[in-house]
Amino acid sequence: MKVGDIPYRSIWLSEDGWSVSVIDQTKLPFAFEISQLTSLTAAADAISRMVVRGAPLIGATAAYGLALAMHADPSDQNLASAVAELTATRPTAVNLRWAVQNVRTGLQPLPPAERAAAAYRRAAEICDEDVAINGAIGEHGHGIIAAAYEQLGRNRPVNILTHCNAGWLATVDWGTALAPIYQAHDLGIPVHVWVDETRPRNQGSALTAWELLQHGVPHTVIVDNAGGHLMQQGQVDLCITGTDRTTAAGDVANKIGTYLKALAAHDNNVPFYVGLPSPTIDWTITDGLRDIPIEQRDPVEVTHLAGRAISGAVETIALTPEGSAAANYAFDVTPARLVTGLITERGICAATPTALSQLFPEHAKKVPPGSLPEAG
Amino acid sequence: MKVGDIPYRSIWLSEDGWSVSVIDQTKLPFAFEISQLTSLTAAADAISRMVVRGAPLIGATAAYGLALAMHADPSDQNLASAVAELTATRPTAVNLRWAVQNVRTGLQPLPPAERAAAAYRRAAEICDEDVAINGAIGEHGHGIIAAAYEQLGRNRPVNILTHCNAGWLATVDWGTALAPIYQAHDLGIPVHVWVDETRPRNQGSALTAWELLQHGVPHTVIVDNAGGHLMQQGQVDLCITGTDRTTAAGDVANKIGTYLKALAAHDNNVPFYVGLPSPTIDWTITDGLRDIPIEQRDPVEVTHLAGRAISGAVETIALTPEGSAAANYAFDVTPARLVTGLITERGICAATPTALSQLFPEHAKKVPPGSLPEAG
Repeated sequence: MKVGDIPYRSIWLSEDGWSVSVIDQTKLPFAFEISQLTSLTAAADAISRMVVRGAPLIGATAAYGLALAMHADPSDQNLASAVAELTATRPTAVNLRWAVQNVRTGLQPLPPAERAAAAYRRAAEICDEDVAINGAIGEHGHGIIAAAYEQLGRNRPVNILTHCNAGWLATVDWGTALAPIYQAHDLGIPVHVWVDETRPRNQGSALTAWELLQHGVPHTVIVDNAGGHLMQQGQVDLCITGTDRTTAAGDVANKIGTYLKALAAHDNNVPFYVGLPSPTIDWTITDGLRDIPIEQRDPVEVTHLAGRAISGAVETIALTPEGSAAANYAFDVTPARLVTGLITERGICAATPTALSQLFPEHAKKVPPGSLPEAG
Repeated sequence: MKVGDIPYRSIWLSEDGWSVSVIDQTKLPFAFEISQLTSLTAAADAISRMVVRGAPLIGATAAYGLALAMHADPSDQNLASAVAELTATRPTAVNLRWAVQNVRTGLQPLPPAERAAAAYRRAAEICDEDVAINGAIGEHGHGIIAAAYEQLGRNRPVNILTHCNAGWLATVDWGTALAPIYQAHDLGIPVHVWVDETRPRNQGSALTAWELLQHGVPHTVIVDNAGGHLMQQGQVDLCITGTDRTTAAGDVANKIGTYLKALAAHDNNVPFYVGLPSPTIDWTITDGLRDIPIEQRDPVEVTHLAGRAISGAVETIALTPEGSAAANYAFDVTPARLVTGLITERGICAATPTALSQLFPEHAKKVPPGSLPEAG
């Protein structure tokens, strides 16, 4: 998508032909800076520090991380340790493991001398596949927004609430939750987005608001506490969020707080959709609450916050009294029963094991028969 | 309660015998400063700028505001304009209107020369009544915590989640939601409090954490998004919040985001209690969603945040991109159906019109017969 008037992806091969460029998302919305990754460690660090974040972009960065590792040392030993280092960076996102294993599987049989080139090729393919997938999510999803506009009698913009950032910055391009919104907007359907701030890291107010602003999509930033009230007052027509991991039964692990919005949507009959590329589906599990590990991050993300000071410089401030403990859970699980529909690259389906396996029959086969209870 | 080792109330008559001292809550938790109010305008400004906040403390400050007005000019005209100025400061809290009308009713028949002394007397009484009421809320409420501890087999501390600040800083002393917690703690029942940060003004991380820290109550600050996950994981035994206005049917208007926590509590069978002094009950209304006006405050509270910079100074930082709009709804309404019980100074009752009118029969008479549907 565009930054100013220049089209960007969130990750690309640098002009030197081997290092990898990413937008430093820790600097947004106050500075637009490109960070150049020149080693496996730099790639792993970019994922850990959330220079790059968002399940699909983490996967793409991990794929390029393996390419950087092979560029430096294509030995079996280095391949194995690079896989381990990258996999350990973030425990919840399934795309990370998917991308790392996918690239590794392709490299393992090759002679070391061919591995770097093959890894770069596969990483580029993963990026292109992500863009195609997200474009298709937008194709399928914008119809929901168009239908909501018709239902409103074309009288006012469709109000859509989103949580965290599942826009193009979370992917290679287009975004997942935001792809339908961008496509609806581009087709001339009037939309207005309620942007959840998304504490503690404020990906909503920092990244989603910035993205929408750059693309000219009308939006309003709200605190995470406000969405329930807006839904009670009829000011939200639908919710669309992303997901970091989806079970084969349709449970959705997404940024902490998503579950609360899904509860409010359910209580107020507001449709709650999740946009997801199929690599975020973990076909091996069916009970998200039991089986998805929830990352706990440094409490300093809760106790401290960075922003632009009056001087213009980005400063970090403390929010809590010295001596008060803090805890920082990064994700929560929204049970399938609260999800109206899953918007995938193959179409929209109910958040049930049956609907998911009908849409992705090649994966359904992998699940042992009888292990998939229909979601309540 | 104590600050360091010195017992404080949140508001008191200064040693000069006429000005009014309050703790400047906009400076906490980074500085403990006393602000001296010397005029009606200063009192109204302290309420508007949230130097003082919390429904009971707003009422007490408004009562003293009328005393300051009468101290300066006890005429009928000044009484009327002081009532109007104070009432306009915050639209949601019912105690404000209650206190202002209560003091006014006492002053109106008096000759102007007697009004100032009578107003100071009544303001002091309102403060003492608030302390007595909150002490009684604690008396009734700590039994719930004691029972939860027994139910846990006395094996671990009782985990209590609270939202915003309904502690002694929100009242004259003791607090409403926190009174049962302080009393349970003082009685030796092990408690641990999950403190919702409470964006946008962070009354949880700034005030509740500070209060609990001063009193030695174990607690952990979390972002507002985290409570649902904690409840799903069995890490919350009960919720207790305050309320700014309660309907005769038991609907509760409290700090924005309370409704989301009540939904999560309901979804996870976690008891959800509200601590309230009876002056926060608005006996004239029964439908909170329809009848309680929700204050919208300056969006700058969403887009900007103050905290302690590394230099030690309190600085304000911007969080959103320039050009992104923000909206700032201050309260939401939790329907009575999500409230397990109301902890009042007369005891605990269900959040239903029948239970409330049985506990407060003198008020029940005021409601026109037939206008109180039983809450679902």
